[in-house]
Amino acid sequence: MTTGKINVSVENIFPLIKKFLYSDHEIFLRELVSNATDATLKLKHLTSIGEAKVEYGNPIIEVKIDKEGKKLHIIDQGLGMTADEVEKYINQVAFSGAEEFLEKYKDSAKDSGIIGHFGLGFYSAFMVAEKVEIITKSFKDEPAAHWTCDGSPEFTLVAHDKTERGTEIILHIAEDSLDFLEEFKIRELLTKYNKFMPVPIKFGTKKEALPKPDDAPEDYKTEYIDIDNIINNPNPAWTKQPVDLTDEDYKNFYRELYPMQFEEPLFNIHLNVDYPFNLTGILYFPKMSGDLQLQKDKIQLYQNQVFVTDNVEGIVPEFLGMLKGVIDSPDIPLNVSRSYLQADGNVKKISNYITRKVADKLKSLFNENREDFEQKWNDIKIVLEYGMLSEPKFYEKAGDFVLYPTVDNKYYTLAELKDAITANQTDKNGKLVVLYASNKDAQHSYIEIAKEKGYEVLLLDSPIVSHLIQKLEADNENLTFTRVDSDHIDKLIQKEETQISKLSEEESTQLKTVLEEIVPKTTYSVQLEPMDSNASPFIITQPEFMRRMKEMSQTGGGGMFGMGNFPEMYNLVVNTNSELATTILNSEKSAQESLVKQALDLAKISQGLLKGEELTAFVKRSFELIK
Amino acid sequence: MTTGKINVSVENIFPLIKKFLYSDHEIFLRELVSNATDATLKLKHLTSIGEAKVEYGNPIIEVKIDKEGKKLHIIDQGLGMTADEVEKYINQVAFSGAEEFLEKYKDSAKDSGIIGHFGLGFYSAFMVAEKVEIITKSFKDEPAAHWTCDGSPEFTLVAHDKTERGTEIILHIAEDSLDFLEEFKIRELLTKYNKFMPVPIKFGTKKEALPKPDDAPEDYKTEYIDIDNIINNPNPAWTKQPVDLTDEDYKNFYRELYPMQFEEPLFNIHLNVDYPFNLTGILYFPKMSGDLQLQKDKIQLYQNQVFVTDNVEGIVPEFLGMLKGVIDSPDIPLNVSRSYLQADGNVKKISNYITRKVADKLKSLFNENREDFEQKWNDIKIVLEYGMLSEPKFYEKAGDFVLYPTVDNKYYTLAELKDAITANQTDKNGKLVVLYASNKDAQHSYIEIAKEKGYEVLLLDSPIVSHLIQKLEADNENLTFTRVDSDHIDKLIQKEETQISKLSEEESTQLKTVLEEIVPKTTYSVQLEPMDSNASPFIITQPEFMRRMKEMSQTGGGGMFGMGNFPEMYNLVVNTNSELATTILNSEKSAQESLVKQALDLAKISQGLLKGEELTAFVKRSFELIK
Repeated sequence: MTTGKINVSVENIFPLIKKFLYSDHEIFLRELVSNATDATLKLKHLTSIGEAKVEYGNPIIEVKIDKEGKKLHIIDQGLGMTADEVEKYINQVAFSGAEEFLEKYKDSAKDSGIIGHFGLGFYSAFMVAEKVEIITKSFKDEPAAHWTCDGSPEFTLVAHDKTERGTEIILHIAEDSLDFLEEFKIRELLTKYNKFMPVPIKFGTKKEALPKPDDAPEDYKTEYIDIDNIINNPNPAWTKQPVDLTDEDYKNFYRELYPMQFEEPLFNIHLNVDYPFNLTGILYFPKMSGDLQLQKDKIQLYQNQVFVTDNVEGIVPEFLGMLKGVIDSPDIPLNVSRSYLQADGNVKKISNYITRKVADKLKSLFNENREDFEQKWNDIKIVLEYGMLSEPKFYEKAGDFVLYPTVDNKYYTLAELKDAITANQTDKNGKLVVLYASNKDAQHSYIEIAKEKGYEVLLLDSPIVSHLIQKLEADNENLTFTRVDSDHIDKLIQKEETQISKLSEEESTQLKTVLEEIVPKTTYSVQLEPMDSNASPFIITQPEFMRRMKEMSQTGGGGMFGMGNFPEMYNLVVNTNSELATTILNSEKSAQESLVKQALDLAKISQGLLKGEELTAFVKRSFELIK
Repeated sequence: MTTGKINVSVENIFPLIKKFLYSDHEIFLRELVSNATDATLKLKHLTSIGEAKVEYGNPIIEVKIDKEGKKLHIIDQGLGMTADEVEKYINQVAFSGAEEFLEKYKDSAKDSGIIGHFGLGFYSAFMVAEKVEIITKSFKDEPAAHWTCDGSPEFTLVAHDKTERGTEIILHIAEDSLDFLEEFKIRELLTKYNKFMPVPIKFGTKKEALPKPDDAPEDYKTEYIDIDNIINNPNPAWTKQPVDLTDEDYKNFYRELYPMQFEEPLFNIHLNVDYPFNLTGILYFPKMSGDLQLQKDKIQLYQNQVFVTDNVEGIVPEFLGMLKGVIDSPDIPLNVSRSYLQADGNVKKISNYITRKVADKLKSLFNENREDFEQKWNDIKIVLEYGMLSEPKFYEKAGDFVLYPTVDNKYYTLAELKDAITANQTDKNGKLVVLYASNKDAQHSYIEIAKEKGYEVLLLDSPIVSHLIQKLEADNENLTFTRVDSDHIDKLIQKEETQISKLSEEESTQLKTVLEEIVPKTTYSVQLEPMDSNASPFIITQPEFMRRMKEMSQTGGGGMFGMGNFPEMYNLVVNTNSELATTILNSEKSAQESLVKQALDLAKISQGLLKGEELTAFVKRSFELIK
């Protein structure tokens, strides 16, 4: 029997790291700036606990391009390394100095913000550099060290005369990566990945005007000096406590995150949790609009203030995908190249936490200022309605703040709505009937008739509303939704009283025969109804059930299979008590036809069904009438 | 000066591989079945070149669940390993035996289909297993070997009495991964990743009816036997030559790829290229529909018949994203976990190749059977139009096959269209005016009037059409597009002839004053035009430029900034030669008002602009007229 240890050689691993480990070459800069940040934060921690007897000062990180020399420099003022430490930390692939540090100082350094994790980041330098140098001087009283490696993987290590504390990484950029020597490119990368990192990052200089002296002459010319150009905000809003932030601060941070976005957010939700996972962040409800910029501005995921990705699928529940803002959590498990979320129990917990926080915030907004909440309803409803359909936990809480607006801009919660309509809208079978419209303009005449009866008509115009009311009906016994144009007014909510028809049974049969000869059977089913004599003589309705099933199958995930392709079928309700009904009955055959056709056209216009050639002919006929 | 070699220890690398390297734990099975496939294909190659003096036979791979023992077995009948080879290939992380094999047999094994690449796949077993065993017997005359490792990374290696050639991997599934012992889970994974792998994969057995014997008695009962259940198709259509495939074969393969899709594809494009990269595949143009399943069915990317991902962003040009099918290329550079495409020059070449092949195929379809191509136009136009806008190379070729349909279902290429309309649709400034409608129903009356003049009216109803015609105008001198309702008929294409007005100048001024008092100024600009006396008395038009800019800014990427929010403005064109114009002029003030309002309502109905309360009032008024 042989025993032994599985073994790994640097010749095999190194090419993988250089070519295939990271999905995108540009992340080398994020990794090196993260290392520089860690070196600085470690020194901060050691000075704070008295282990490093040096002045911490106000260290910065500098990124510098040497275009002629084809070099990129990343320079920090952190704790530096001795020659021995270089041997230990650099010459050992995948040995994470950050992990070691956190382990050693686990009680005190828990919240130090140290980023490193896998011990691979430094080697990503070889994705873009043909040679890498490290010049480093430890805060300890030891000489500086100079390490050089061309990625072969042979290295050399010699002493160096550097005297200032800290580490300088010099990348000799390879021929196929020369765009990383362009100022705009480096600026773009620093802005993308390092915009909110905790140590100031200098990239170049900028001019600043000197204050005008008190004794300046009349022809005084403003003088300028060069100052460091710091590209990051080391203390972004989400790292602060909510009590320390004003509404204006939140709005400013939104603009900082999305400089191209001019609309202000509606409101924000500050996330802040320590246990069982660490998560901070600020989510914003944006004002919905067709604005394309808004779709590009996504929620950004950070880890210890380092940008990771704007693909938060899995972490943020799907229905909150339209929100904006940031999430920062060191506890979100990502793969080595940080490009892909690892499936993990924590992730589901984070997603649930976010759902709960959003629901709580909505409830408190509703309670604190209902009027304001109602005004924002149109912008937020699609998110909330989708949440009710997709997240059971959100649905449970939604009763407290989800609103049902009427066509007259009154807003009810479901409980309030039930109270308000029970007296007038309970049908003879004890069902509470909620009337709704999906479009105030298109269904105007139907809405008016319902309102004349004193009924409340909701305006439910989201694309997923058919799914939502299906769910509400299933969960609320004796509650039923019906669109105002799904039947004529006396049948929408059936009461005990019956209308008496002016026509005899014989006349009715005769009228029906006349109508059915003229009205196309494939689309309309003729129904005679004794209604108020002032009601419209011809009305087109479409039964609720069929229409809703069609809508559900068109918007996906429900309804009945294949129903989306069913032909449209309508009822033509003819009011037997209208004068027109009598007129038709008493007219000659040719006059009957033109009367019925004109009346049908008018009913179709009311439902938006008169189109194309028919509409052109109708308009032409009508112009003839008035000329 | 110190020199040395960067070094890597298995203690550091192993945990990374186990926890963080792969984005998804489930891919362990893909990796192990890939290894088993490689072992089989290597043996095939060695027997074919006479280096292995054994019978290749009909080897299969078996995947077996032992639920009680909490074990998963992957068993192949490939070339196996000697104890020495286990030491060499298994105990060395990231040493790729496949790379070594391909290097050694580089001329003969080029097309052997061997998958392995990074030498890391085997270790992915430790993502789900607490202990892994390998029992392997080489095709060479040496005893079998038994390797065991609990991931510590200590291993043991002893002899084993296995006599059949091949390798068995036994995973002792860890407590947190027990779902990988469920039959449905393993079946799902095999179907997802291994459905088209080149060696048959057995998973369980299924019943098959025995043929009825000739001398079967009357009460014969069908007998069944258990046969191997092979879950894959080792010879998928894309690996064959186009000449060996019928239309039916392509349709069958579409159903094989997307079992939940019932619609047949419109046509397919077989990709097959060796140089400068290796790529095979079949792309399908689907029948467009609102079908949600269709959106889920994406193009799948394979490498040597192993499923990699259905995210082909970057490889397939964006405008072809709605296509279906497969692409198989060993030359697409992916990162180690194969979850992410590496930016690479090859990728752009592949994308360009696909664009060119699609354009060529469209051209030949158009040339071979134009009628059929025209019938499919509605289903493919959105893809092609988007391609013209987004891929300059595609735009160049598009002239050969992109069609411009008329409202009467005639189809022109751009060149044909120009020929057809030059005589009748060139305006007095020498501009060739293309008339179009975006909706046959909504613009019916305008279309009719243009057709009466002998004009061709195109039907351009894609959402991106405003961008497309903007581009066509820029690239074709003296060509201009205008929608049929953008002006009245005499101004749509301005000719030299002028109509004479029946009204005197004084009468005109008087009529205009009357109209402007009644018609709301904020929405309509009144224009008096002497037209044919039979033409409509009132027409509403919307100038092309404004409308197009608004549309472009609403669909993104063009138009003028902020234009999307401009209020709608229309022209009200009043025909001074109509009887109605004279009638209005000669009426009393109150009659004037009701005439103008009714006429405006009718013009609005023609443009779909009469809505809500106005429409209800119009219908009510009109019912009164006929009762």
